[in-house]
Amino acid sequence: MVGKVYIVGAGPGDPELITIKAARLIRSADVILYDRLVSEETIFLAKEGCELIYVGKHPGESSTTQERINEMLVEKAQEGGSIVRLKGGDPFLFGRGGEEAQVLSREGISYEVVPGITSAISVPAYAGIPVTQRHIASSVAFITGHEASTKTKGTVEWERIAQSVDTLVVMMGIRNLGNIAERLINGGRDPKTPVAIIEKGTTKLQKTITGTLETIEVKARIEGIKPPAITIIGKVVNLREELRWIED
Amino acid sequence: MVGKVYIVGAGPGDPELITIKAARLIRSADVILYDRLVSEETIFLAKEGCELIYVGKHPGESSTTQERINEMLVEKAQEGGSIVRLKGGDPFLFGRGGEEAQVLSREGISYEVVPGITSAISVPAYAGIPVTQRHIASSVAFITGHEASTKTKGTVEWERIAQSVDTLVVMMGIRNLGNIAERLINGGRDPKTPVAIIEKGTTKLQKTITGTLETIEVKARIEGIKPPAITIIGKVVNLREELRWIED
Repeated sequence: MVGKVYIVGAGPGDPELITIKAARLIRSADVILYDRLVSEETIFLAKEGCELIYVGKHPGESSTTQERINEMLVEKAQEGGSIVRLKGGDPFLFGRGGEEAQVLSREGISYEVVPGITSAISVPAYAGIPVTQRHIASSVAFITGHEASTKTKGTVEWERIAQSVDTLVVMMGIRNLGNIAERLINGGRDPKTPVAIIEKGTTKLQKTITGTLETIEVKARIEGIKPPAITIIGKVVNLREELRWIED
Repeated sequence: MVGKVYIVGAGPGDPELITIKAARLIRSADVILYDRLVSEETIFLAKEGCELIYVGKHPGESSTTQERINEMLVEKAQEGGSIVRLKGGDPFLFGRGGEEAQVLSREGISYEVVPGITSAISVPAYAGIPVTQRHIASSVAFITGHEASTKTKGTVEWERIAQSVDTLVVMMGIRNLGNIAERLINGGRDPKTPVAIIEKGTTKLQKTITGTLETIEVKARIEGIKPPAITIIGKVVNLREELRWIED
Protein backbone atom coordinates (compact mmCIF):
# COMPACT_ATOMS: atom_id res chain seq x y z
CA MET A 1 0.00 0.00 0.00
CA VAL A 2 1.24 3.43 -0.91
CA GLY A 3 2.15 5.62 2.08
CA LYS A 4 1.15 9.14 2.95
CA VAL A 5 3.45 12.17 2.99
CA TYR A 6 3.18 15.00 5.52
CA ILE A 7 4.89 18.25 4.50
CA VAL A 8 5.58 19.65 7.96
CA GLY A 9 6.94 22.97 9.24
CA ALA A 10 9.42 22.55 12.12
CA GLY A 11 9.35 26.20 13.19
CA PRO A 12 12.18 28.73 13.54
CA GLY A 13 14.59 27.01 15.94
CA ASP A 14 13.14 27.14 19.48
CA PRO A 15 12.13 23.46 19.83
CA GLU A 16 8.95 24.42 21.75
CA LEU A 17 7.73 26.39 18.74
CA ILE A 18 6.52 23.34 16.84
CA THR A 19 2.83 22.51 16.65
CA ILE A 20 1.08 19.69 18.46
CA LYS A 21 0.21 18.27 15.03
CA ALA A 22 3.85 18.33 13.88
CA ALA A 23 5.02 16.65 17.11
CA ARG A 24 2.37 13.91 16.76
CA LEU A 25 3.35 13.19 13.15
CA ILE A 26 7.11 13.16 13.92
CA ARG A 27 6.54 10.69 16.78
CA SER A 28 4.63 8.27 14.54
CA ALA A 29 6.63 8.65 11.31
CA ASP A 30 8.29 5.66 9.63
CA VAL A 31 10.59 7.90 7.58
CA ILE A 32 11.65 11.53 8.14
CA LEU A 33 13.44 13.57 5.49
CA TYR A 34 14.74 16.67 7.25
CA ASP A 35 16.46 19.94 6.38
CA ARG A 36 19.52 21.67 7.81
CA LEU A 37 17.58 24.19 9.90
CA VAL A 38 15.54 21.64 11.84
CA SER A 39 16.63 21.51 15.51
CA GLU A 40 18.10 18.32 17.02
CA GLU A 41 15.47 18.33 19.79
CA THR A 42 12.79 18.06 17.10
CA ILE A 43 14.49 15.10 15.39
CA PHE A 44 14.82 13.38 18.78
CA LEU A 45 11.01 13.10 18.93
CA ALA A 46 11.17 10.36 16.27
CA LYS A 47 10.31 6.81 17.38
CA GLU A 48 12.87 4.04 17.53
CA GLY A 49 13.36 2.47 14.15
CA CYS A 50 12.30 5.58 12.25
CA GLU A 51 14.46 6.08 9.15
CA LEU A 52 16.08 9.53 9.39
CA ILE A 53 17.31 11.00 6.12
CA TYR A 54 19.23 14.27 6.13
CA VAL A 55 18.60 16.22 2.93
CA GLY A 56 19.93 19.62 4.02
CA LYS A 57 21.68 22.06 1.75
CA HIS A 58 24.84 23.40 3.37
CA PRO A 59 26.01 26.54 1.59
CA GLY A 60 29.12 25.71 -0.44
CA GLU A 61 28.94 21.97 0.12
CA SER A 62 27.69 19.26 -2.17
CA SER A 63 24.08 18.78 -1.22
CA THR A 64 20.95 16.87 -2.05
CA THR A 65 19.34 18.49 -5.08
CA GLN A 66 15.65 19.38 -5.07
CA GLU A 67 15.12 16.82 -7.84
CA ARG A 68 16.69 14.08 -5.70
CA ILE A 69 14.53 15.08 -2.71
CA ASN A 70 11.44 14.89 -4.91
CA GLU A 71 12.46 11.42 -6.12
CA MET A 72 13.10 10.19 -2.59
CA LEU A 73 9.69 11.41 -1.39
CA VAL A 74 8.01 9.43 -4.16
CA GLU A 75 10.19 6.32 -3.58
CA LYS A 76 9.59 6.30 0.18
CA ALA A 77 5.84 6.86 -0.25
CA GLN A 78 5.71 3.91 -2.65
CA GLU A 79 7.30 1.72 0.02
CA GLY A 80 4.34 2.60 2.30
CA GLY A 81 3.95 3.99 5.82
CA SER A 82 3.98 7.51 7.15
CA ILE A 83 6.59 9.83 5.63
CA VAL A 84 7.31 13.21 7.21
CA ARG A 85 9.04 15.85 5.09
CA LEU A 86 10.34 18.19 7.82
CA LYS A 87 11.31 21.73 6.88
CA GLY A 88 12.55 24.69 8.94
CA GLY A 89 9.95 27.42 9.47
CA ASP A 90 6.82 27.08 7.35
CA PRO A 91 6.79 24.83 4.26
CA PHE A 92 4.64 27.18 2.16
CA LEU A 93 6.65 30.40 2.65
CA PHE A 94 9.92 30.11 0.69
CA GLY A 95 10.07 26.47 1.72
CA ARG A 96 9.66 24.78 -1.68
CA GLY A 97 6.81 22.89 -0.04
CA GLY A 98 4.64 23.86 -2.99
CA GLU A 99 7.06 22.24 -5.44
CA GLU A 100 7.18 19.02 -3.43
CA ALA A 101 3.38 18.99 -3.17
CA GLN A 102 3.20 19.31 -6.98
CA VAL A 103 5.40 16.24 -7.44
CA LEU A 104 3.27 14.21 -5.01
CA SER A 105 0.05 15.41 -6.63
CA ARG A 106 1.29 14.42 -10.10
CA GLU A 107 2.29 10.96 -8.85
CA GLY A 108 -1.11 10.48 -7.21
CA ILE A 109 0.42 10.23 -3.71
CA SER A 110 -1.73 11.36 -0.80
CA TYR A 111 -0.31 14.21 1.29
CA GLU A 112 -1.12 16.83 3.89
CA VAL A 113 0.44 20.20 4.60
CA VAL A 114 1.18 21.08 8.25
CA PRO A 115 1.97 24.80 8.62
CA GLY A 116 4.84 25.76 10.91
CA ILE A 117 5.76 28.89 12.82
CA THR A 118 7.45 31.00 10.17
CA SER A 119 10.81 32.61 10.91
CA ALA A 120 9.58 35.69 9.04
CA ILE A 121 7.34 36.75 11.97
CA SER A 122 8.68 34.80 14.97
CA VAL A 123 12.33 35.82 14.62
CA PRO A 124 11.46 39.55 14.66
CA ALA A 125 9.07 38.85 17.60
CA TYR A 126 11.91 37.27 19.63
CA ALA A 127 13.93 40.43 18.94
CA GLY A 128 11.07 42.65 20.19
CA ILE A 129 9.86 43.73 16.74
CA PRO A 130 6.20 43.31 15.70
CA VAL A 131 6.14 43.31 11.88
CA THR A 132 2.90 45.34 11.93
CA GLN A 133 1.66 47.91 14.44
CA ARG A 134 -1.33 50.27 14.30
CA HIS A 135 -0.36 53.81 13.18
CA ILE A 136 3.15 52.56 12.25
CA ALA A 137 2.79 49.67 9.78
CA SER A 138 -0.41 48.41 8.10
CA SER A 139 1.38 46.15 5.62
CA VAL A 140 4.38 43.85 5.58
CA ALA A 141 6.11 42.07 2.71
CA PHE A 142 8.21 38.92 2.93
CA ILE A 143 10.77 38.72 0.17
CA THR A 144 13.53 36.31 -0.74
CA GLY A 145 16.96 37.93 -0.76
CA HIS A 146 18.48 35.06 -2.71
CA GLU A 147 17.61 36.25 -6.17
CA ALA A 148 19.76 39.36 -6.34
CA SER A 149 22.97 37.32 -6.07
CA THR A 150 22.87 36.33 -9.71
CA LYS A 151 23.15 39.99 -10.75
CA THR A 152 21.07 39.10 -13.78
CA LYS A 153 17.52 40.37 -13.84
CA GLY A 154 15.64 38.90 -10.87
CA THR A 155 11.90 39.15 -10.48
CA VAL A 156 11.92 41.08 -7.19
CA GLU A 157 11.03 44.70 -7.91
CA TRP A 158 13.00 46.28 -5.05
CA GLU A 159 12.62 49.82 -6.43
CA ARG A 160 8.84 49.45 -6.60
CA ILE A 161 8.52 47.73 -3.25
CA ALA A 162 10.62 50.51 -1.68
CA GLN A 163 7.73 52.90 -1.13
CA SER A 164 4.67 50.67 -1.35
CA VAL A 165 4.88 48.46 1.75
CA ASP A 166 5.52 49.62 5.33
CA THR A 167 7.66 46.76 6.69
CA LEU A 168 9.99 44.61 4.58
CA VAL A 169 11.27 41.28 5.86
CA VAL A 170 14.09 39.89 3.74
CA MET A 171 14.76 36.18 4.10
CA MET A 172 18.22 34.74 3.44
CA GLY A 173 19.62 37.85 1.81
CA ILE A 174 22.72 38.63 3.87
CA ARG A 175 25.15 38.35 0.96
CA ASN A 176 23.05 40.69 -1.17
CA LEU A 177 22.33 43.19 1.57
CA GLY A 178 24.30 46.07 0.04
CA ASN A 179 22.65 45.60 -3.33
CA ILE A 180 19.16 45.38 -1.79
CA ALA A 181 19.69 48.51 0.39
CA GLU A 182 20.95 50.45 -2.63
CA ARG A 183 17.99 49.48 -4.77
CA LEU A 184 15.53 50.42 -2.00
CA ILE A 185 17.19 53.85 -1.64
CA ASN A 186 17.12 54.27 -5.45
CA GLY A 187 13.41 53.46 -5.27
CA GLY A 188 12.85 56.37 -2.88
CA ARG A 189 13.07 54.74 0.55
CA ASP A 190 14.60 57.07 3.15
CA PRO A 191 18.29 56.11 3.64
CA LYS A 192 17.73 56.66 7.40
CA THR A 193 15.06 53.90 7.52
CA PRO A 194 15.88 51.68 10.51
CA VAL A 195 17.04 48.13 9.79
CA ALA A 196 17.62 45.13 12.06
CA ILE A 197 19.40 41.87 11.25
CA ILE A 198 18.80 38.85 13.46
CA GLU A 199 21.15 35.87 13.29
CA LYS A 200 20.03 32.42 14.57
CA GLY A 201 16.76 33.92 15.81
CA THR A 202 14.73 32.16 18.59
CA THR A 203 17.75 29.98 19.50
CA LYS A 204 20.18 30.45 22.39
CA LEU A 205 22.64 31.96 19.92
CA GLN A 206 20.26 34.72 18.79
CA LYS A 207 22.11 37.93 17.91
CA THR A 208 20.60 41.21 16.72
CA ILE A 209 22.22 44.25 15.19
CA THR A 210 20.50 47.47 14.11
CA GLY A 211 21.38 50.31 11.78
CA THR A 212 19.87 52.11 8.80
CA LEU A 213 19.63 51.37 5.09
CA GLU A 214 22.85 53.41 4.69
CA THR A 215 24.85 51.77 7.48
CA ILE A 216 23.59 48.21 7.83
CA GLU A 217 25.86 46.54 5.26
CA VAL A 218 29.04 47.82 6.92
CA LYS A 219 27.69 47.00 10.40
CA ALA A 220 26.80 43.45 9.36
CA ARG A 221 30.32 42.99 8.00
CA ILE A 222 31.99 44.36 11.15
CA GLU A 223 29.81 42.16 13.37
CA GLY A 224 30.46 39.13 11.20
CA ILE A 225 26.76 38.32 10.72
CA LYS A 226 26.30 34.98 8.96
CA PRO A 227 23.31 33.10 7.56
CA PRO A 228 20.74 32.03 8.62
CA ALA A 229 19.72 35.61 9.28
CA ILE A 230 16.62 37.69 8.70
CA THR A 231 16.54 41.40 7.88
CA ILE A 232 13.70 43.74 8.92
CA ILE A 233 13.39 47.16 7.28
CA GLY A 234 10.94 49.82 8.49
CA LYS A 235 9.81 52.01 11.36
CA VAL A 236 8.70 49.02 13.45
CA VAL A 237 12.40 48.30 14.08
CA ASN A 238 12.39 51.28 16.48
CA LEU A 239 9.87 49.45 18.71
CA ARG A 240 12.66 47.07 19.71
CA GLU A 241 14.07 49.64 22.15
CA GLU A 242 10.86 49.41 24.17
CA LEU A 243 9.77 45.84 23.41
CA ARG A 244 12.93 43.72 23.61
CA TRP A 245 12.13 40.98 26.09
CA ILE A 246 15.15 38.73 25.50
CA GLU A 247 18.69 39.99 25.98
CA ASP A 248 21.05 38.73 23.28
CA MET B 1 4.63 39.39 43.80
CA VAL B 2 3.83 40.72 40.34
CA GLY B 3 2.87 38.06 37.81
CA LYS B 4 4.12 37.41 34.32
CA VAL B 5 2.16 37.86 31.11
CA TYR B 6 2.48 35.59 28.08
CA ILE B 7 1.21 37.06 24.81
CA VAL B 8 0.34 33.82 23.01
CA GLY B 9 -0.77 32.99 19.48
CA ALA B 10 -3.55 30.36 19.37
CA GLY B 11 -3.21 29.62 15.66
CA PRO B 12 -5.78 29.79 12.86
CA GLY B 13 -8.57 27.49 14.10
CA ASP B 14 -7.44 23.86 13.75
CA PRO B 15 -6.86 23.08 17.45
CA GLU B 16 -3.80 20.94 16.62
CA LEU B 17 -2.10 23.97 15.09
CA ILE B 18 -1.02 25.46 18.39
CA THR B 19 2.56 25.20 19.57
CA ILE B 20 3.84 22.97 22.36
CA LYS B 21 4.87 26.16 24.18
CA ALA B 22 1.38 27.67 23.90
CA ALA B 23 -0.25 24.44 25.14
CA ARG B 24 2.13 24.27 28.13
CA LEU B 25 1.41 27.88 29.11
CA ILE B 26 -2.36 27.51 28.71
CA ARG B 27 -2.31 24.39 30.92
CA SER B 28 -0.47 26.19 33.73
CA ALA B 29 -2.13 29.64 33.48
CA ASP B 30 -3.92 31.21 36.45
CA VAL B 31 -5.77 33.67 34.22
CA ILE B 32 -6.50 33.54 30.48
CA LEU B 33 -7.83 36.54 28.55
CA TYR B 34 -8.97 35.19 25.17
CA ASP B 35 -10.25 36.53 21.87
CA ARG B 36 -13.22 35.59 19.74
CA LEU B 37 -11.25 33.55 17.21
CA VAL B 38 -9.67 31.17 19.72
CA SER B 39 -11.10 27.64 19.40
CA GLU B 40 -13.01 26.01 22.27
CA GLU B 41 -10.68 22.99 22.24
CA THR B 42 -7.81 25.35 23.02
CA ILE B 43 -9.62 26.98 25.97
CA PHE B 44 -10.45 23.49 27.30
CA LEU B 45 -6.71 22.92 27.91
CA ALA B 46 -6.90 25.32 30.89
CA LYS B 47 -6.51 23.83 34.37
CA GLU B 48 -9.34 23.68 36.87
CA GLY B 49 -9.68 26.97 38.71
CA CYS B 50 -8.14 29.01 35.91
CA GLU B 51 -9.95 32.34 35.53
CA LEU B 52 -11.21 32.58 31.93
CA ILE B 53 -11.98 36.07 30.67
CA TYR B 54 -13.54 36.55 27.25
CA VAL B 55 -12.43 39.83 25.68
CA GLY B 56 -13.47 39.18 22.06
CA LYS B 57 -14.74 41.82 19.71
CA HIS B 58 -17.87 40.66 17.91
CA PRO B 59 -18.51 42.84 14.85
CA GLY B 60 -21.50 45.07 15.56
CA GLU B 61 -21.76 44.17 19.25
CA SER B 62 -20.61 46.08 22.27
CA SER B 63 -17.19 44.75 23.02
CA THR B 64 -14.22 45.08 25.31
CA THR B 65 -12.18 48.06 24.16
CA GLN B 66 -8.44 47.74 23.62
CA GLU B 67 -7.92 50.21 26.50
CA ARG B 68 -9.94 48.00 28.87
CA ILE B 69 -7.99 44.89 27.76
CA ASN B 70 -4.73 46.74 28.45
CA GLU B 71 -5.98 47.74 31.91
CA MET B 72 -7.07 44.19 32.73
CA LEU B 73 -3.69 42.77 31.70
CA VAL B 74 -1.97 45.15 34.09
CA GLU B 75 -4.49 44.52 36.93
CA LYS B 76 -4.26 40.75 36.63
CA ALA B 77 -0.46 40.83 36.47
CA GLN B 78 -0.38 42.94 39.64
CA GLU B 79 -2.43 40.25 41.40
CA GLY B 80 0.38 37.79 40.58
CA GLY B 81 0.58 34.39 38.89
CA SER B 82 0.77 33.39 35.27
CA ILE B 83 -1.43 35.37 32.88
CA VAL B 84 -1.96 34.16 29.30
CA ARG B 85 -3.21 36.66 26.74
CA LEU B 86 -4.51 34.33 24.05
CA LYS B 87 -5.02 35.67 20.52
CA GLY B 88 -6.13 34.02 17.29
CA GLY B 89 -3.33 33.46 14.76
CA ASP B 90 -0.07 35.23 15.60
CA PRO B 91 0.01 38.09 18.12
CA PHE B 92 2.58 40.16 16.20
CA LEU B 93 0.87 40.16 12.78
CA PHE B 94 -2.22 42.41 12.94
CA GLY B 95 -2.83 41.06 16.45
CA ARG B 96 -2.30 44.24 18.48
CA GLY B 97 0.19 42.17 20.47
CA GLY B 98 2.72 44.96 20.02
CA GLU B 99 0.38 47.49 21.63
CA GLU B 100 -0.24 45.22 24.62
CA ALA B 101 3.49 44.57 24.97
CA GLN B 102 4.06 48.35 25.05
CA VAL B 103 1.61 48.76 27.93
CA LEU B 104 3.29 45.95 29.90
CA SER B 105 6.74 47.34 29.17
CA ARG B 106 5.75 50.81 30.38
CA GLU B 107 4.28 49.35 33.58
CA GLY B 108 7.45 47.34 34.22
CA ILE B 109 5.58 44.03 33.97
CA SER B 110 7.56 41.03 32.76
CA TYR B 111 6.24 39.36 29.60
CA GLU B 112 7.07 36.93 26.81
CA VAL B 113 5.81 36.68 23.26
CA VAL B 114 4.82 33.22 21.98
CA PRO B 115 4.39 33.27 18.19
CA GLY B 116 1.43 31.38 16.73
CA ILE B 117 0.65 29.85 13.35
CA THR B 118 -0.57 32.84 11.37
CA SER B 119 -3.80 32.59 9.40
CA ALA B 120 -2.09 34.58 6.64
CA ILE B 121 -0.04 31.56 5.51
CA SER B 122 -1.84 28.56 7.01
CA VAL B 123 -5.31 29.36 5.71
CA PRO B 124 -4.08 29.56 2.08
CA ALA B 125 -2.05 26.34 2.72
CA TYR B 126 -5.22 24.49 3.81
CA ALA B 127 -6.83 25.64 0.56
CA GLY B 128 -3.89 24.32 -1.50
CA ILE B 129 -2.26 27.72 -2.13
CA PRO B 130 1.42 28.32 -1.26
CA VAL B 131 1.84 32.12 -0.87
CA THR B 132 5.24 31.92 -2.60
CA GLN B 133 6.49 29.53 -5.29
CA ARG B 134 9.70 29.58 -7.33
CA HIS B 135 9.20 31.11 -10.82
CA ILE B 136 5.70 32.27 -9.83
CA ALA B 137 5.98 34.42 -6.67
CA SER B 138 9.17 35.66 -4.97
CA SER B 139 7.41 38.09 -2.64
CA VAL B 140 4.20 38.22 -0.61
CA ALA B 141 2.58 41.10 1.26
CA PHE B 142 0.15 40.80 4.18
CA ILE B 143 -2.16 43.78 4.40
CA THR B 144 -5.04 44.73 6.62
CA GLY B 145 -8.26 45.25 4.69
CA HIS B 146 -9.88 47.11 7.58
CA GLU B 147 -8.59 50.56 6.80
CA ALA B 148 -10.37 51.18 3.50
CA SER B 149 -13.81 51.07 5.15
CA THR B 150 -13.50 54.62 6.45
CA LYS B 151 -13.25 55.93 2.86
CA THR B 152 -11.03 58.67 4.23
CA LYS B 153 -7.36 58.45 3.34
CA GLY B 154 -5.93 55.24 4.78
CA THR B 155 -2.24 54.48 4.89
CA VAL B 156 -2.37 51.39 2.67
CA GLU B 157 -1.06 52.35 -0.75
CA TRP B 158 -3.10 49.85 -2.78
CA GLU B 159 -2.24 51.49 -6.12
CA ARG B 160 1.49 51.24 -5.39
CA ILE B 161 1.30 47.73 -3.97
CA ALA B 162 -0.64 46.64 -7.08
CA GLN B 163 2.44 46.03 -9.24
CA SER B 164 5.24 45.72 -6.72
CA VAL B 165 4.54 42.48 -4.85
CA ASP B 166 3.69 39.10 -6.43
CA THR B 167 1.16 37.72 -3.93
CA LEU B 168 -1.18 39.86 -1.79
CA VAL B 169 -2.91 38.42 1.26
CA VAL B 170 -5.65 40.69 2.59
CA MET B 171 -6.72 40.06 6.16
CA MET B 172 -10.24 40.93 7.34
CA GLY B 173 -11.16 42.97 4.28
CA ILE B 174 -14.34 41.30 3.03
CA ARG B 175 -16.50 44.39 3.36
CA ASN B 176 -13.99 46.52 1.44
CA LEU B 177 -13.26 43.95 -1.24
CA GLY B 178 -14.79 45.92 -4.12
CA ASN B 179 -12.88 49.05 -3.18
CA ILE B 180 -9.59 47.15 -2.79
CA ALA B 181 -9.99 45.33 -6.14
CA GLU B 182 -10.78 48.62 -7.89
CA ARG B 183 -7.74 50.36 -6.44
CA LEU B 184 -5.46 47.45 -7.41
CA ILE B 185 -6.80 47.56 -11.00
CA ASN B 186 -6.34 51.35 -11.04
CA GLY B 187 -2.77 50.73 -9.91
CA GLY B 188 -2.14 48.58 -12.98
CA ARG B 189 -2.83 45.06 -11.73
CA ASP B 190 -4.35 42.85 -14.43
CA PRO B 191 -8.14 42.63 -13.87
CA LYS B 192 -7.86 38.90 -14.72
CA THR B 193 -5.52 38.27 -11.76
CA PRO B 194 -6.83 35.20 -9.92
CA VAL B 195 -8.27 35.71 -6.44
CA ALA B 196 -9.35 33.25 -3.75
CA ILE B 197 -11.37 33.95 -0.61
CA ILE B 198 -11.31 31.43 2.22
CA GLU B 199 -13.92 31.58 4.98
CA LYS B 200 -13.28 29.89 8.37
CA GLY B 201 -10.00 28.44 7.07
CA THR B 202 -8.42 25.34 8.72
CA THR B 203 -11.71 24.55 10.51
CA LYS B 204 -14.32 21.97 9.52
CA LEU B 205 -16.40 24.79 8.04
CA GLN B 206 -13.66 25.92 5.65
CA LYS B 207 -15.09 27.26 2.38
CA THR B 208 -13.14 28.57 -0.61
CA ILE B 209 -14.30 30.55 -3.63
CA THR B 210 -12.18 31.72 -6.55
CA GLY B 211 -12.54 34.39 -9.20
CA THR B 212 -10.58 37.34 -10.57
CA LEU B 213 -10.10 40.93 -9.44
CA GLU B 214 -13.02 41.81 -11.72
CA THR B 215 -15.43 39.11 -10.56
CA ILE B 216 -14.59 38.33 -6.94
CA GLU B 217 -16.77 40.94 -5.24
CA VAL B 218 -19.93 39.73 -6.96
CA LYS B 219 -19.00 36.08 -6.39
CA ALA B 220 -18.39 36.72 -2.68
CA ARG B 221 -21.80 38.38 -2.40
CA ILE B 222 -23.59 35.54 -4.22
CA GLU B 223 -21.86 32.91 -2.08
CA GLY B 224 -22.62 34.88 1.09
CA ILE B 225 -18.99 34.90 2.28
CA LYS B 226 -18.70 36.28 5.81
CA PRO B 227 -15.80 37.22 8.09
CA PRO B 228 -13.47 35.82 9.27
CA ALA B 229 -12.17 35.38 5.75
CA ILE B 230 -8.83 35.82 4.03
CA THR B 231 -8.30 36.95 0.46
CA ILE B 232 -5.34 35.85 -1.70
CA ILE B 233 -4.54 37.74 -4.89
CA GLY B 234 -1.96 36.54 -7.42
CA LYS B 235 -0.87 33.78 -9.79
CA VAL B 236 -0.27 31.32 -6.91
CA VAL B 237 -4.07 31.01 -6.60
CA ASN B 238 -3.98 28.89 -9.79
CA LEU B 239 -1.87 26.27 -7.98
CA ARG B 240 -4.97 25.35 -5.98
CA GLU B 241 -6.32 23.30 -8.89
CA GLU B 242 -3.35 20.96 -8.58
CA LEU B 243 -2.57 21.27 -4.85
CA ARG B 244 -5.92 21.20 -3.07
CA TRP B 245 -5.62 18.43 -0.52
CA ILE B 246 -8.81 19.12 1.47
CA GLU B 247 -12.22 19.12 -0.15
CA ASP B 248 -14.46 21.92 1.13
